[in-house]
Amino acid sequence: MSNTLGNLFRITSFGESHGSSVGIIIDGLPSNFEIDLANIQKELNRRKPGQSSISTTRQEDDNFEIISGIFENKSTGSPITIIIPNKDFKSAEYSSLKEIYRPGHADKVYQYKYGHRDYRGGGRSSARITAAWVAAGAIAKQYLEKKFAIKTEAIVSSIKDIHLASPFEYLNWELAETNIVRCPNESISSKMIQLIRDTKEKGDSLGGIISARISNVPIGIGEPVFGKLNAELAHALFSINAVKGVEFGSGFKSTLLYGSENNDQPNSTKNNDGGITGGISNGKAVEISIAFKPTSSISKEQNVENISNEIVPFSITGRHDPCVLPRAVPIVEAVIATVVLDSILINLKNLQLK
Amino acid sequence: MSNTLGNLFRITSFGESHGSSVGIIIDGLPSNFEIDLANIQKELNRRKPGQSSISTTRQEDDNFEIISGIFENKSTGSPITIIIPNKDFKSAEYSSLKEIYRPGHADKVYQYKYGHRDYRGGGRSSARITAAWVAAGAIAKQYLEKKFAIKTEAIVSSIKDIHLASPFEYLNWELAETNIVRCPNESISSKMIQLIRDTKEKGDSLGGIISARISNVPIGIGEPVFGKLNAELAHALFSINAVKGVEFGSGFKSTLLYGSENNDQPNSTKNNDGGITGGISNGKAVEISIAFKPTSSISKEQNVENISNEIVPFSITGRHDPCVLPRAVPIVEAVIATVVLDSILINLKNLQLK
Amino acid sequence: MSNTLGNLFRITSFGESHGSSVGIIIDGLPSNFEIDLANIQKELNRRKPGQSSISTTRQEDDNFEIISGIFENKSTGSPITIIIPNKDFKSAEYSSLKEIYRPGHADKVYQYKYGHRDYRGGGRSSARITAAWVAAGAIAKQYLEKKFAIKTEAIVSSIKDIHLASPFEYLNWELAETNIVRCPNESISSKMIQLIRDTKEKGDSLGGIISARISNVPIGIGEPVFGKLNAELAHALFSINAVKGVEFGSGFKSTLLYGSENNDQPNSTKNNDGGITGGISNGKAVEISIAFKPTSSISKEQNVENISNEIVPFSITGRHDPCVLPRAVPIVEAVIATVVLDSILINLKNLQLK
Amino acid sequence: MSNTLGNLFRITSFGESHGSSVGIIIDGLPSNFEIDLANIQKELNRRKPGQSSISTTRQEDDNFEIISGIFENKSTGSPITIIIPNKDFKSAEYSSLKEIYRPGHADKVYQYKYGHRDYRGGGRSSARITAAWVAAGAIAKQYLEKKFAIKTEAIVSSIKDIHLASPFEYLNWELAETNIVRCPNESISSKMIQLIRDTKEKGDSLGGIISARISNVPIGIGEPVFGKLNAELAHALFSINAVKGVEFGSGFKSTLLYGSENNDQPNSTKNNDGGITGGISNGKAVEISIAFKPTSSISKEQNVENISNEIVPFSITGRHDPCVLPRAVPIVEAVIATVVLDSILINLKNLQLK
Repeated sequence: MSNTLGNLFRITSFGESHGSSVGIIIDGLPSNFEIDLANIQKELNRRKPGQSSISTTRQEDDNFEIISGIFENKSTGSPITIIIPNKDFKSAEYSSLKEIYRPGHADKVYQYKYGHRDYRGGGRSSARITAAWVAAGAIAKQYLEKKFAIKTEAIVSSIKDIHLASPFEYLNWELAETNIVRCPNESISSKMIQLIRDTKEKGDSLGGIISARISNVPIGIGEPVFGKLNAELAHALFSINAVKGVEFGSGFKSTLLYGSENNDQPNSTKNNDGGITGGISNGKAVEISIAFKPTSSISKEQNVENISNEIVPFSITGRHDPCVLPRAVPIVEAVIATVVLDSILINLKNLQLK
Repeated sequence: MSNTLGNLFRITSFGESHGSSVGIIIDGLPSNFEIDLANIQKELNRRKPGQSSISTTRQEDDNFEIISGIFENKSTGSPITIIIPNKDFKSAEYSSLKEIYRPGHADKVYQYKYGHRDYRGGGRSSARITAAWVAAGAIAKQYLEKKFAIKTEAIVSSIKDIHLASPFEYLNWELAETNIVRCPNESISSKMIQLIRDTKEKGDSLGGIISARISNVPIGIGEPVFGKLNAELAHALFSINAVKGVEFGSGFKSTLLYGSENNDQPNSTKNNDGGITGGISNGKAVEISIAFKPTSSISKEQNVENISNEIVPFSITGRHDPCVLPRAVPIVEAVIATVVLDSILINLKNLQLK
Repeated sequence: MSNTLGNLFRITSFGESHGSSVGIIIDGLPSNFEIDLANIQKELNRRKPGQSSISTTRQEDDNFEIISGIFENKSTGSPITIIIPNKDFKSAEYSSLKEIYRPGHADKVYQYKYGHRDYRGGGRSSARITAAWVAAGAIAKQYLEKKFAIKTEAIVSSIKDIHLASPFEYLNWELAETNIVRCPNESISSKMIQLIRDTKEKGDSLGGIISARISNVPIGIGEPVFGKLNAELAHALFSINAVKGVEFGSGFKSTLLYGSENNDQPNSTKNNDGGITGGISNGKAVEISIAFKPTSSISKEQNVENISNEIVPFSITGRHDPCVLPRAVPIVEAVIATVVLDSILINLKNLQLK
Repeated sequence: MSNTLGNLFRITSFGESHGSSVGIIIDGLPSNFEIDLANIQKELNRRKPGQSSISTTRQEDDNFEIISGIFENKSTGSPITIIIPNKDFKSAEYSSLKEIYRPGHADKVYQYKYGHRDYRGGGRSSARITAAWVAAGAIAKQYLEKKFAIKTEAIVSSIKDIHLASPFEYLNWELAETNIVRCPNESISSKMIQLIRDTKEKGDSLGGIISARISNVPIGIGEPVFGKLNAELAHALFSINAVKGVEFGSGFKSTLLYGSENNDQPNSTKNNDGGITGGISNGKAVEISIAFKPTSSISKEQNVENISNEIVPFSITGRHDPCVLPRAVPIVEAVIATVVLDSILINLKNLQLK
């Protein structure tokens, strides 16, 4: 609970958006695994601020430092600690936030819960802390790919009402990395980018849906009752800032079908169950849709509550993403890979001993 | 993980649909709390099979037995064990299932995961095990109401395309208990019941959406990073059979709004965040929508895989619900109450010591 | 924590000495393992009350009932629930305990901690609850022996000042089962039995030391920092009623040696480290000594505190063991086997994936 | 498990002796608590190497850096991360250790467990990692003292056969800090110091016993079955390098007494139960004895195994403590305070809600 996710493979998150750094401890990676450090940086670059004209203008290189757990480039079995310094933080620009609670943000609930709050840019509640999750997820992804040939991918499938027709039937997900909005269809991605630019101009913000797919998961991953693979994935995904909905396979749309329509019969290519039956991977690709609400920080004036519980008009300054989805794609992949690797390690006893 | 849910208040589930009983251990209920046993039975009756003309015809009284943890009607602080015998199980009627894997069921994944399987009626993967969750949830609900005035309610808000217009704006949720489909609107519930009857007639099945509301949650419940209140609730809800989607507040619909539209400004009655901001309760009612796929067991003939991996036509006999939602309402309430009580106990240190 | 021990293989204890039964849930036993039920009963018989002239006269057959998790005699991967009914409990004989706190017992601390207490025979704090641990341990022992050839044994090596000279150098531990005190040396066991009889006659009680040995543990079991094999074993052993000290290998005696004397050089048969180095099994037998204080319940008159906090003279009636060690031998073996099996399952990832 | 200790208050350890640093994450300290940073350094100084003529000559200032979780000098409720750089490490001096397994050390078991090993000075198995535990423990101690007036103290009560007569009856434990061996009796401490010097001269090493006392623990701390206060303390204490035995109160000596002698009658000052009954604090001081084996690293030549599994003579160079006890005193206090604070937070629900 709290700041730790996972059981046999687990990550412990620390740091704040405007402290010296954010970081993560990765505990339980099997030993003697050679880690591709350049790949970690590549994943961090997919998430880093200032990467494109549609992201926040905060500039962070997000260079990481490994301070434990790796010797001669290979995991030792000891906890791997990764730190990512905060360089371009401007606490001053947040001083205006000291006395107000931003709508949709955790400002007020932290104040009430803890009685003491780092008001600078969200502090601990900032999505900046997910940078370190991405570093951990990069290692999990490497491990899953090299040892089990499992691949974790995500794309942006909708921004507001601009959307891919059938994201999981869409063939070339790798095209998503060819544009700044991370949607694999060129004409749709162009429209998304334009919408984001227009919305930013108006001082407003956008949400959308990220689709994620885990390929090549063997049958049998996930615990059957309270550690269901979908339950663990949902838990991890709802840990990401701004996520308001998670569904597997046909999800909410399944409620509109008859059982005879929704059932994945064995000779069909349908995947309405999204690769998970009874909480356990069934051999098909695991398919997930994740809803992100529009960014809460908008420069448009809105009513806010201040620390004296008065309601006042306020325009949020600071540097914010008009739409977080393009940068959230690697975060989604990271938490998914973290969960899948943990589930696989837990399942080893069934694989090895039965 | 596995068969245990929760931290300070936690439940451990055991039993199978066609063994002698299903049961639960409740660990961590504060001591000296007087338990209303009749209320536990009342909750079990809301879930029990054979309760109405639209549920399965399996008949179980679901009378429970408390075998530890309560002395002179009050909790002692020791684990409370509750057992619910299986009486009306007919293993014979499941012998036809020994050699096939039902679509949408866990038959095949259990066989592959464990190499040994209780094929009778789903065994451990049967929703029958949730009867004991309901008993545990009844105690959690009593505790939340008496000590914190927190109320947990759920209703059926859609069956296929028949739905309440705005479930959370609907005023009289208590009316849901006046009809067998547990939808609070009389004309809509009548249509739902008719649709269920017609669908049963055709040998098919239905899904839908359950809406849940937790009222009077104080500000500050939920851990900020990996134990977010929404993440813990989603984890518990995805543990329920047939759940394929979970969303909070405006959920997937939030993706269609601008930030300025979706933000819950402080002087508004909107609750797009669904009562949770940054993973922590914000003082408004927590509002959740849960998608249940149509029941996988249908008597209509469909293609199935058998244990020799051949595809054969098959009609599922046995006694099944054409639509699980009416009986799932108390299950949803039970797991929600379990999570909320756990989160409240975890938060005591913030309440008491700051 | 609380009533659950272990991670991947874990047991959850429930029940009270004077309720209907005591029991256990065993979660995580790998599936498809054939369980020897007669062996479980055999282990329970080693612990059961009334088994000999030097144990309590309470008569319990300790017949067990398996109510989940086993199908066609083999584990299914689902939680195994075992219940042992309490038959010969005489609550009446404990009514005298309602108003006093027995020295050395948990009566007072339970009253203060929980504010509500089952005063009958210790309730939850009774060693009777360990009967169910023994049943779980029997299964763990079977698994360890059949799958890994690991053997867990314990003997009584001292009662008061009557003791084996060098318990771990003593060859024939299996002889311990040939007498009622469970010490493998015939002349020493005779003296122990005589001392126990004399002490019982005087209305007093005795303590002593149990020695335990785990043979054939592969190198590498145990986590290196906070899940050290010795730390996990000590945790489990201190969970047994009346245990006041635990040591590994030369233990407290090592403090009297020079490093050059205490170090186990590689060509030596010495085992001063007790088979564990740096918290991890080193390939030698794991050797543990466990100190049990003399039974707190004595019929000799002593001063006690009553619930009005007055000090009054009191003689404890009821049926008690003058010395718990002979019956504690299978309890020690059970918790050790539980810990070792858990540690082995946790270590699978190192065995399989490096 | 693994590198994390505790539940509601918990620490996650990271780092190696010859990497860039060692560190700790402290999760769960209640918010809004003002932390005395100078006191953390004071505790670190009690443990740091090179502090006296009888400790290792490795020189580390052990200055710490707080990189998260504290804002305006007070805890925010977010994880507190503390890093202590390694400055005076000389990897070169350990190159001789690359090909041998030192007796009594974890070299061989790490090699077998992980297949890849940081051989420099023990890497992760070095007691250097406990520096960060001391920093965490300093914060726990501050919290326990300020909020609950609970005091945690430890002293050296024996080195080899030189020992205090009755450590727990000894009145002035604070005198322990007036000499470099941390024993409160001047004449005994002088003898200990002389023995350590003589032994170092001979290239040999010494063990001994640390006595620890927790004063002012309220009645009711500790969980009754598997989270007993003594079990949790023993687990934490056995996590410290070189600990081979732990006992509470009269411990192993209780086995030599009759029940009538050992029972702590209510009007007596005896504390044979060591302040814990039935696993729960009983209101008296908690009293613990901890056996440390003599340091495994000795410069005297001994037989060792090398990585080709040959036995060869070897003299360990490098800089080592001839006796670790004086520096282990603050480590013992730190892990005890960590466990007690966690237990107190877990017990809040009983204190507040009954």
